[in-house]
Amino acid sequence: MSWLPTLITDTPEQGYEIAIKMSRMAVKMTQPDDAARSKMRQDYSNNAESLIMSSHVVATNFQTVAQANDFWRR
Amino acid sequence: MSWLPTLITDTPEQGYEIAIKMSRMAVKMTQPDDAARSKMRQDYSNNAESLIMSSHVVATNFQTVAQANDFWRR
Amino acid sequence: MSWLPTLITDTPEQGYEIAIKMSRMAVKMTQPDDAARSKMRQDYSNNAESLIMSSHVVATNFQTVAQANDFWRR
Amino acid sequence: MSWLPTLITDTPEQGYEIAIKMSRMAVKMTQPDDAARSKMRQDYSNNAESLIMSSHVVATNFQTVAQANDFWRR
Amino acid sequence: MSWLPTLITDTPEQGYEIAIKMSRMAVKMTQPDDAARSKMRQDYSNNAESLIMSSHVVATNFQTVAQANDFWRR
Amino acid sequence: MSWLPTLITDTPEQGYEIAIKMSRMAVKMTQPDDAARSKMRQDYSNNAESLIMSSHVVATNFQTVAQANDFWRR
Repeated sequence: MSWLPTLITDTPEQGYEIAIKMSRMAVKMTQPDDAARSKMRQDYSNNAESLIMSSHVVATNFQTVAQANDFWRR
Repeated sequence: MSWLPTLITDTPEQGYEIAIKMSRMAVKMTQPDDAARSKMRQDYSNNAESLIMSSHVVATNFQTVAQANDFWRR
Repeated sequence: MSWLPTLITDTPEQGYEIAIKMSRMAVKMTQPDDAARSKMRQDYSNNAESLIMSSHVVATNFQTVAQANDFWRR
Repeated sequence: MSWLPTLITDTPEQGYEIAIKMSRMAVKMTQPDDAARSKMRQDYSNNAESLIMSSHVVATNFQTVAQANDFWRR
Repeated sequence: MSWLPTLITDTPEQGYEIAIKMSRMAVKMTQPDDAARSKMRQDYSNNAESLIMSSHVVATNFQTVAQANDFWRR
Repeated sequence: MSWLPTLITDTPEQGYEIAIKMSRMAVKMTQPDDAARSKMRQDYSNNAESLIMSSHVVATNFQTVAQANDFWRR
């Protein structure tokens, strides 16, 4: 089963979850080693700039998901 | 209740508030520990580059919210 | 009165002013202390990378304002 | 044969693969030496900020691919 | 006379010039002192990362100008 | 003759070439000295973060070119 079967969700909050998933998947594909990623998590989750940068990635992905869902207007 | 029930707001200023909320939520989801975030706040709120980076995240999220609201044109 | 009553302006230059205002407001909301911001201003206004980063935030916000105004085409 | 014959894919996941390919191609065109890139890979794949930055590039490219595919809505 | 009377140009190249002008204007508005900017120019024009960051700002502004001109399609 | 006569290309790959050209042109306009740019090239082409940042600029420019070409859908 695909990790990204669709960009369509029922609610903005679900769309945000997909945006987070997409943001993490790119990291996972570049660094597939679970232990290596866990080790880094300790660092970046306590580094303000890293967290702000992460939030920017989510913002970009969320924009895509929101457009896909016509902003859940209806 | 959802933290993001809708992207639709009455005014641009309310849309901006949502953009800020979205920007912070990504940080919160990556670092859920309140004490850890408070500690970092002291640092990044006195660091010009961190503040500029934060403003960029808000700008990206606001663009999404503004599109959702058809830029509050009507 | 709202600090952002509308995204609609008569001219591109006025739209650019709003983009700058929006870029600064996110900083102000994260660091509301006027003295703290003034102190940082001295630093980032003499730091080329900070200025370039600021210009990027304005560019993102201006894109939103320009779209809102249908690029002042008419 | 072209490395980028089309932006159209059957699924979002395939679109994501193209976004990753596009992100890497720009690096390859700037640094065509395979050995030089391999050497750097060791570094950036263990550097949280580099990985977050990479994820942002993928997010931007994915937005383009998603728009090209009308977000795989149909 | 306005420094940005219109986003409409005859050619892509002229649009690119406006994008550069817009990118510089944000810097000028944050640091209005000519001598201070000249001093920094020496630094950032010999710093690869600063130049790449500058190019990103131009890219964002150019996207806006290109949209305004309907990409000079006709 | 213009260095950017049109954004329209026959294929996505040609569009990607234009995106790279645009990304480099902004650098060239800020640092017109060929020797200065060659010197920096040695540095940034062996620096992972610089390469990732470059790839982001290309991604932004490619998005513009892809929109101009209606994503080469037809």
